[in-house]
Amino acid sequence: MDDIEIEVLADPDLSEPTLIEGLPGVGHVGKLAVEHLLEEFDSEVVRRVYSTEFPPQVTITEGVADLASAEIHAVDVTGTEAGDRTDDEHETDDGSESDGESATVDEGDEGDGVDLLVLTGDHQAQTNAGHYRLTEAFLDVAEEFGVQQVFALGGVPTGELVEEPSVLGAVSDEAAIDRLKAAGVEFREDEPAGGVVGISGLLLGLGGRRGFDVGCLMGETSGYLVDPKSAQAVLVALEDAIGFEVSFESLEERADEMEEVVGKIQEMQNQQASVPTDDDLRYIG
Amino acid sequence: MDDIEIEVLADPDLSEPTLIEGLPGVGHVGKLAVEHLLEEFDSEVVRRVYSTEFPPQVTITEGVADLASAEIHAVDVTGTEAGDRTDDEHETDDGSESDGESATVDEGDEGDGVDLLVLTGDHQAQTNAGHYRLTEAFLDVAEEFGVQQVFALGGVPTGELVEEPSVLGAVSDEAAIDRLKAAGVEFREDEPAGGVVGISGLLLGLGGRRGFDVGCLMGETSGYLVDPKSAQAVLVALEDAIGFEVSFESLEERADEMEEVVGKIQEMQNQQASVPTDDDLRYIG
Amino acid sequence: MDDIEIEVLADPDLSEPTLIEGLPGVGHVGKLAVEHLLEEFDSEVVRRVYSTEFPPQVTITEGVADLASAEIHAVDVTGTEAGDRTDDEHETDDGSESDGESATVDEGDEGDGVDLLVLTGDHQAQTNAGHYRLTEAFLDVAEEFGVQQVFALGGVPTGELVEEPSVLGAVSDEAAIDRLKAAGVEFREDEPAGGVVGISGLLLGLGGRRGFDVGCLMGETSGYLVDPKSAQAVLVALEDAIGFEVSFESLEERADEMEEVVGKIQEMQNQQASVPTDDDLRYIG
Amino acid sequence: MDDIEIEVLADPDLSEPTLIEGLPGVGHVGKLAVEHLLEEFDSEVVRRVYSTEFPPQVTITEGVADLASAEIHAVDVTGTEAGDRTDDEHETDDGSESDGESATVDEGDEGDGVDLLVLTGDHQAQTNAGHYRLTEAFLDVAEEFGVQQVFALGGVPTGELVEEPSVLGAVSDEAAIDRLKAAGVEFREDEPAGGVVGISGLLLGLGGRRGFDVGCLMGETSGYLVDPKSAQAVLVALEDAIGFEVSFESLEERADEMEEVVGKIQEMQNQQASVPTDDDLRYIG
Repeated sequence: MDDIEIEVLADPDLSEPTLIEGLPGVGHVGKLAVEHLLEEFDSEVVRRVYSTEFPPQVTITEGVADLASAEIHAVDVTGTEAGDRTDDEHETDDGSESDGESATVDEGDEGDGVDLLVLTGDHQAQTNAGHYRLTEAFLDVAEEFGVQQVFALGGVPTGELVEEPSVLGAVSDEAAIDRLKAAGVEFREDEPAGGVVGISGLLLGLGGRRGFDVGCLMGETSGYLVDPKSAQAVLVALEDAIGFEVSFESLEERADEMEEVVGKIQEMQNQQASVPTDDDLRYIG
Repeated sequence: MDDIEIEVLADPDLSEPTLIEGLPGVGHVGKLAVEHLLEEFDSEVVRRVYSTEFPPQVTITEGVADLASAEIHAVDVTGTEAGDRTDDEHETDDGSESDGESATVDEGDEGDGVDLLVLTGDHQAQTNAGHYRLTEAFLDVAEEFGVQQVFALGGVPTGELVEEPSVLGAVSDEAAIDRLKAAGVEFREDEPAGGVVGISGLLLGLGGRRGFDVGCLMGETSGYLVDPKSAQAVLVALEDAIGFEVSFESLEERADEMEEVVGKIQEMQNQQASVPTDDDLRYIG
Repeated sequence: MDDIEIEVLADPDLSEPTLIEGLPGVGHVGKLAVEHLLEEFDSEVVRRVYSTEFPPQVTITEGVADLASAEIHAVDVTGTEAGDRTDDEHETDDGSESDGESATVDEGDEGDGVDLLVLTGDHQAQTNAGHYRLTEAFLDVAEEFGVQQVFALGGVPTGELVEEPSVLGAVSDEAAIDRLKAAGVEFREDEPAGGVVGISGLLLGLGGRRGFDVGCLMGETSGYLVDPKSAQAVLVALEDAIGFEVSFESLEERADEMEEVVGKIQEMQNQQASVPTDDDLRYIG
Repeated sequence: MDDIEIEVLADPDLSEPTLIEGLPGVGHVGKLAVEHLLEEFDSEVVRRVYSTEFPPQVTITEGVADLASAEIHAVDVTGTEAGDRTDDEHETDDGSESDGESATVDEGDEGDGVDLLVLTGDHQAQTNAGHYRLTEAFLDVAEEFGVQQVFALGGVPTGELVEEPSVLGAVSDEAAIDRLKAAGVEFREDEPAGGVVGISGLLLGLGGRRGFDVGCLMGETSGYLVDPKSAQAVLVALEDAIGFEVSFESLEERADEMEEVVGKIQEMQNQQASVPTDDDLRYIG
């Protein structure tokens, strides 16, 4: 195996697709957001990226092993009216493989809507250099499909629970700022203070240098919990920025469940009259 | 020295051998299991794999140094009736070198039983990428010998002492699940939760991608102790799956010794009326 | 992207320029010193060095991302009388890009003063080998511009607050010692005891081997605080060694602010009658 | 710079020299031993090995920087009667460079005694793979000089103060065991239990595979203190094994100084009626 190996699973003819990245990160905001897109819309896996930069690990689903990888899905949001759909009809497997029937990405129809390439997976790279190499590989795939616009989705940690999460933006080219502001994205001087790290950061940095129009949408989140509400805020901004509609029913249900969990934790805290440690809160979900 | 160097020590003509991997891991289950096979059956080392991915280390046996390596042994289980043998007759050196007399792998006889290639050693790789590279090297050797079926043996930690360890399975191809279930292997939804890591995991992941039929047999084990009982459970499942028989006398003796150790520790705990720490229990053996 | 990528932004015709390095390090002394030069003099970025050895990170300035890099600026200190200048006239952007008007490095005028190449950035390399590779890349750029003399600026930790910081020296060639002593630089037997590490150290080591005349100027500093006073001491020695003049007004203001911060911390300590921890003091700035 | 760069400083014509390695390690036993040889005998540096596997660091001696390296010295022990010499006459600089006068390795005289190549330096490699690569480079130099016999010197930790340190042996080829036993070296079954790590270990492992006759001499040492007494024990065994004589006066003085230090520490402990921590004892020297 080479350091990076790109497996070709399908080559649909997409119309200037937008690449949406949602790999694991703060509050799992980016990953929750793209998983929601994959649940709500028809999709098919077009590329699987294996790499010695991923952990030496397989995931086991019903006894069958899948080698650590990142996946790029073609998602058809053409003509979708998310509200008309039931969950059962459009659910696909959790990001691994969509069966033949539901993989109805319409290859011929190029005039009518929005084509997305959705990048997700279970891992960031395990070394500094690996982040660079994987990001270049993802951008190579994007180039192959004629992508011009890239959105990296993620969370920005605030250190406290956020009732109404804002969405912070960062871009590769300042010309995009006004367009994103119009979609409700906030731009603040020197925020996020620590910059953007990992593959989202390098999509901005390397993607920008290669001429892609890259935006990073970061939902405010405590940093302690998996945060579906922040993921929804990010998707709302993305809807506006790209022009598509998605139902948030299932994401809202998940956010409600999280609120309950948080409520119980806060109650316990009050009873104990003591401050909870980070460990109590970290990634309950 | 190259990053990986494969030393050829013998090239017996094996009949569709099965590769059995037992490198160090949880409870040393896999390593104990394959060491038991090497003790009970005639074998010869066919390949030694050196690598800059192993620690910069030699082991010293009676003053003589052996460079860190993994070894692949050809093991002849044809016509063996393990019960008839005495330990003295069939013991080989602890995995390093078998002398001329005992290395009686029968090269001509291909119709009569089961040929095994047994992979063991003292080390996993020391980097992520190293795990990938070493696993590919092991699969290269397997290919050279015409291996189609691979079993990775190991342990799955339960966090508590297990009276009757089950054997959990994971496979590269779901077609193998029923066959392994018939051999007493259990398959549970989304277990092991953390997937399978290290070289066992990559044998599943990379081996499956290269067309090998790979099964991983994981004996339940506390995770705190070297566990011969769990190793025996794994070997019992392997006997059924491949079709051979081995005597467990010496492994059972070792398990009895461990029970005594555990009993003494528990007694001490009760007297102290305090919970033992992990350190008290870790890898007593 | 290659492991190291050197972007060419300008190719001014410089007259035997001196390379001044000020990357992050103890007390941020080197970085403060070179940033002061970039604030006080006209400059333009001539090279930007990207590398997989830098963290996978972008910095965000007013919403726009910049990929982690080191930058080499051409700085024109010809005919400068630092005292005559107002801050407004000569301020450039914080090291990123100077606009067309202020980038008035005078390419034709080679007889009249001192040309500097100033190397700065936000990161050291992230691996041992990376430090070697980046330093070689910086020396390649230096060679291209005809550099013969190199100064690495930094701090040497004393563990306590220093009222009047001395400047310690280290050189690649002992012939330079007397010249630097004349500029007020101190040389002490076997100091600094731990040698010099990072890119400053390798500029001495690798630069010396390649025939550059390299001096390292290290301002004494507590090691706990960003230290503009130490940076000024280093620059005073550099002025003497190279022969140029710079106004220290803004650096002195910054030093005064630090003194105030330190004073407040000391007051608090006295009131609490307890020793402050390192964490109280670390890099307040 | 390449990953490893071997600088040629001299090419004396040596007669089947023996390579003696003494890099930093437990109790600095190996390094103290070879430094003593360099102090007592005439020597010249023949090779300097630079590598990106060493730390990015220079040492500073009287203001002048030396890039991290390992050095191989040719040492002439022909006809030496160590007792006749005064320290002043034969002292060379601390391993860095010997001046023209004292570098009197006799290139023509090949019949009359013992030629040594002494390998020392301030660093082990910083990565696993680096240990392998550096060891191969050292063996390349040894091959170039016609070396057949290699001795790696070091310490083996006992965890307590040792009054009369034994010297433990390990070899690449068991044929050497009797010869070393005759020189007072002890061989114990399965000791050292953890094997031998670092460059000493790989000289055994890789050197043995390349056909060198490699012995490792390990002086017992507490592991907490720089141990000149253990270094002397190792050198006494080496004298016997190779056939040369060296005065131990200066090493004995240093051992006496250490005894005093240890005595004071033990006194303090008794007064405090408390056990000293490892930190109290670690590498006082």
